[in-house]
Amino acid sequence: MKIVLSVNAGSSSVKISVFSVESRGAEPRPLAEAQVNGLTAPPPQVDYRRNEEGDSTTTVYKDEPVDKIQGGNGNDDKAIKSQDDAFAFLLRLFVDDPKLTAIGSHDDIAIVTHRIVHGGDYTTPQVVVGDTYAHLEALNDLAPLHNATSLEIVRSCLRQLPKATNVACFDSQFHATLPSHIRTYPIDPKIAKANMLRKYGFHGLSYAFITKAVADFLGKPVDQTNIIALHLGSGASACAIRKGKSWDTSMGLTPLAGLPGATRSGSVDPSLVFHYASDVGRLSPASTSDLHISRAEEILNKEAGWKAMTGTTNFGAIAAAGDDKPGHQLAFDLFIDRVCGFVGSYYVTLRGQVDAIVFAGGIGERSDRLRKAVVEQCACLGFAIDDAANKDAAKAKGVVTDLTGKTGGKNQHRVLVCRTDEQLEMAREGSADEKLWKN
Amino acid sequence: MKIVLSVNAGSSSVKISVFSVESRGAEPRPLAEAQVNGLTAPPPQVDYRRNEEGDSTTTVYKDEPVDKIQGGNGNDDKAIKSQDDAFAFLLRLFVDDPKLTAIGSHDDIAIVTHRIVHGGDYTTPQVVVGDTYAHLEALNDLAPLHNATSLEIVRSCLRQLPKATNVACFDSQFHATLPSHIRTYPIDPKIAKANMLRKYGFHGLSYAFITKAVADFLGKPVDQTNIIALHLGSGASACAIRKGKSWDTSMGLTPLAGLPGATRSGSVDPSLVFHYASDVGRLSPASTSDLHISRAEEILNKEAGWKAMTGTTNFGAIAAAGDDKPGHQLAFDLFIDRVCGFVGSYYVTLRGQVDAIVFAGGIGERSDRLRKAVVEQCACLGFAIDDAANKDAAKAKGVVTDLTGKTGGKNQHRVLVCRTDEQLEMAREGSADEKLWKN
Repeated sequence: MKIVLSVNAGSSSVKISVFSVESRGAEPRPLAEAQVNGLTAPPPQVDYRRNEEGDSTTTVYKDEPVDKIQGGNGNDDKAIKSQDDAFAFLLRLFVDDPKLTAIGSHDDIAIVTHRIVHGGDYTTPQVVVGDTYAHLEALNDLAPLHNATSLEIVRSCLRQLPKATNVACFDSQFHATLPSHIRTYPIDPKIAKANMLRKYGFHGLSYAFITKAVADFLGKPVDQTNIIALHLGSGASACAIRKGKSWDTSMGLTPLAGLPGATRSGSVDPSLVFHYASDVGRLSPASTSDLHISRAEEILNKEAGWKAMTGTTNFGAIAAAGDDKPGHQLAFDLFIDRVCGFVGSYYVTLRGQVDAIVFAGGIGERSDRLRKAVVEQCACLGFAIDDAANKDAAKAKGVVTDLTGKTGGKNQHRVLVCRTDEQLEMAREGSADEKLWKN
Repeated sequence: MKIVLSVNAGSSSVKISVFSVESRGAEPRPLAEAQVNGLTAPPPQVDYRRNEEGDSTTTVYKDEPVDKIQGGNGNDDKAIKSQDDAFAFLLRLFVDDPKLTAIGSHDDIAIVTHRIVHGGDYTTPQVVVGDTYAHLEALNDLAPLHNATSLEIVRSCLRQLPKATNVACFDSQFHATLPSHIRTYPIDPKIAKANMLRKYGFHGLSYAFITKAVADFLGKPVDQTNIIALHLGSGASACAIRKGKSWDTSMGLTPLAGLPGATRSGSVDPSLVFHYASDVGRLSPASTSDLHISRAEEILNKEAGWKAMTGTTNFGAIAAAGDDKPGHQLAFDLFIDRVCGFVGSYYVTLRGQVDAIVFAGGIGERSDRLRKAVVEQCACLGFAIDDAANKDAAKAKGVVTDLTGKTGGKNQHRVLVCRTDEQLEMAREGSADEKLWKN
């Protein structure tokens, strides 16, 4: 048995899920999950949930100020300011919890899997040793806005858990199967090759999880499963999955392309940003000597999306707004339009051989209004939603829930919602390597 | 009766079509068409075709060096170097042709219509007087790469034909009906408004022509006609036409967005260009004090597309290439993929209520291989092509030709090819204003 941590670092948060894995290839068993939020909007707060015997769950902390807990532990002189601090704090939380018996000390942690957004040409998870780490740093040039915090956590982990094996799991990895006519950009091929410019795609840990979960639900082999998967959260993307593999996806060289998100424009006319502000090619003040981020990339990644349109990043509030908030309605309609565009496009690229449309991610799993709007706009493709099942989806048990309604037509495809679990997928992928089980 | 010229200026060419219009609202009758090519790749050459009584056509010149004709006219000291020179040369050609009886002198030309790519918020053609001209110049900021040469010709015309009425016809105008959730970009609405940042769309003169021609062919009122129109040329776009009006289109703020073209990338990750070269935000050396073009816009508009991928701008050569040219095959497959993506997307946005898919433009009208590939990839939407009709389409008479094949299904939509005619559409729109007929 090995204890596996799945670590997911955002710009303002660090999340760690604890799993035990009995043997190589065994399904990871979730033991606990903890998250520090608000690193960039102090005071930071913590959520901590522990799984008990028999599938019940204990919520130890919920939105608890970190200072309060540290005070109790006699550590109140140590403020949590960085990802590194947060990581150390969460490790102590696990070690100090007498009911989390699997972790008695730091040395009990065997494997730490890290979610890295941009994996470049990596097609499998990578055990992080010196060489790999240098390669990962090089990838920062492709996605400085996205990879930097993950790498900070890898560094923390190498220092704080010197006995653990670190495994980098990439969000781009699932899309290594994109065919060349889809992943190629119509630009100078020499420059494309030299600068690694192609469609990579992201949210791959989620899509890998969704593909297995949906194939299992449908009782089909993964390699015969075709789905249009929608991972819709504050970052949103779509994926055409053909024979269990990624065939097309909406994000591109970086996560900016495709659907809009909470603070992201998605695909816009590539010349738009040059009309948005003068001098967008200069470096953002947020750049460092190592990381170069243009003002343009900052505007399109951080100052756009529905936050810019409505003032909120909460899509639930946008979906719930009435006619008194025309900006909210516009943002909702715009998002539905863009999502349905990808559904139509991917229906064609899959030649209509679509087992299901699958909703996942924070918005996809929670917004019944969004699901209803998307499915109704795509009725002409043979999709229909069951209103009652759609409304009750949040209460449903199980990973996958069927929301398919009746169309009366013969070409009916399923409408599913999937509780995606990137942390579990990381634990699976990160613990699968035979070499990790030799000692 | 009025003589109407339709003028279309490209970066390296000037094309003028001559029409007579009997009365307001009457269909323009084509009298002649002439074009100077090679302005940026001297020596310039001229094509000149005159229509005779009874629909026959005389080719007066074909790829004839301009110098040779001028030598014959005693004008060999005047080299044709600019759009202004070319315009003057073509006017003399018409005046000096004794068989073009409708034009005996410059003063016989009543109306000159100009194709202007970007019309900003203009929803109708504009008679060019002082005020309008200043507005048109202001639009250059939105589309410097596209509007500049058109404006140069407008200036030539104001000087060389002082008695004619100049009418600006806009390629963006047909898309004034885009609904707000489709034309809005998910960016800061204040900056979007101040800087006029939204989807405009282009190729509108072609789409206006196609809509009328297809409605006529189908025997349906224009306002009940729904089509997916594909204007595929060295610049390529797609348009979802709902009830005879533009509902969505693939180009955006500028013609860069959407499909790739001969030298244009189309939609790519908006951050791609910042990874393509350093300092892409600086001005291109081609910029002038009036016209600011970033290196980024130049790269994506002029140094990308299938020219960058294959070395040729000739899509016919790309489509005809065999397995020995994998770069050509990749460019072909990539283009088909992107076109089919829009077909799927627009099928959904039109809720499957699609009378026809319509191919137009140089590639759309000429490449049977492209049409076959697109229609076959979209078979799941109920499209099918008749192979014999498709191969013989170039020989077919009439503006619209039906290529629909048999699907056996019930949801069959038509597959059409349309010989689009932007020059005729300009003559129609430019001569329609009541005020022009008062004197």
